[in-house]
Amino acid sequence: MNSITYRPIGIIRTPFKNKEGMPIQPSGGIGVRSTIKISAEYIAGLKDLEGFSHIILIYHFHLSKDYSLTVTPFLDDQPHGVFATRAPERPNSIGLSVVKLNAVKGDILDIENVDIIDGTPLLDIKPYVPEFDAQVEVETGWLGKIEKRVHKTKSDLRFT
Amino acid sequence: MNSITYRPIGIIRTPFKNKEGMPIQPSGGIGVRSTIKISAEYIAGLKDLEGFSHIILIYHFHLSKDYSLTVTPFLDDQPHGVFATRAPERPNSIGLSVVKLNAVKGDILDIENVDIIDGTPLLDIKPYVPEFDAQVEVETGWLGKIEKRVHKTKSDLRFT
Repeated sequence: MNSITYRPIGIIRTPFKNKEGMPIQPSGGIGVRSTIKISAEYIAGLKDLEGFSHIILIYHFHLSKDYSLTVTPFLDDQPHGVFATRAPERPNSIGLSVVKLNAVKGDILDIENVDIIDGTPLLDIKPYVPEFDAQVEVETGWLGKIEKRVHKTKSDLRFT
Repeated sequence: MNSITYRPIGIIRTPFKNKEGMPIQPSGGIGVRSTIKISAEYIAGLKDLEGFSHIILIYHFHLSKDYSLTVTPFLDDQPHGVFATRAPERPNSIGLSVVKLNAVKGDILDIENVDIIDGTPLLDIKPYVPEFDAQVEVETGWLGKIEKRVHKTKSDLRFT
């Protein structure tokens, strides 16, 4: 299987109109309200989705034209393998976000906690189920170290 | 944007050789060891992945040939919209699993807690980061009701 072709099932509409205006951390997306317009042919697939408080969006990073296998993320000065980051420039430019689902009205999903650029093509929606998706006793490698460094930096500033 | 084309970055090797032998619930995959063979051209992208205890696999349900917009899942007798289920037969046959990462050795990932069929083409790997991916105060719609019904059924049997 050399190539796999998907078609967007809808378009994500958000307040983030270009890459420069994006929050660089997910916490920047908390409370941000957005909508998804689902294409007419797929609306029947939304039945009973509204019972879920959170959904997993799988989408295409449509502005990512190229990639490299190592990237230096925001807030770090060390390069990491692209698969150890959430950078949009990846071999397959697939994005994943867990968002809050506020309402489903016809072909429109009203969502919250969004860190996605406007006009992003949506590929799939899955219900977020803690039994499947939430993990305990998690280690987060270089990201864990960064989190500690960020906290340390704040503390240092507080006392200068 | 009418179609989006991806290429597999590797192949997932598991003990589940056909659809009939698959666990029907994620708990059936707990402790199941598997491997992923990453294609040579992408190995550099794995740098620093090993620091993460859990990873998100995004893959193609390669045995799903068709879909319908409503499905009746295992353990339920009611049809639900396909986007409110994790069924493999979906408009874009994208699968998502959070698995435990035991080791990275060259082009081989040693993983655990796998509920994926052997030979599945892998599209992307992302580090699992609780701050991004774990949600609290979650409602799980029809699935929540099923869980309760399952518990209730067990209790009834215990007293017959």
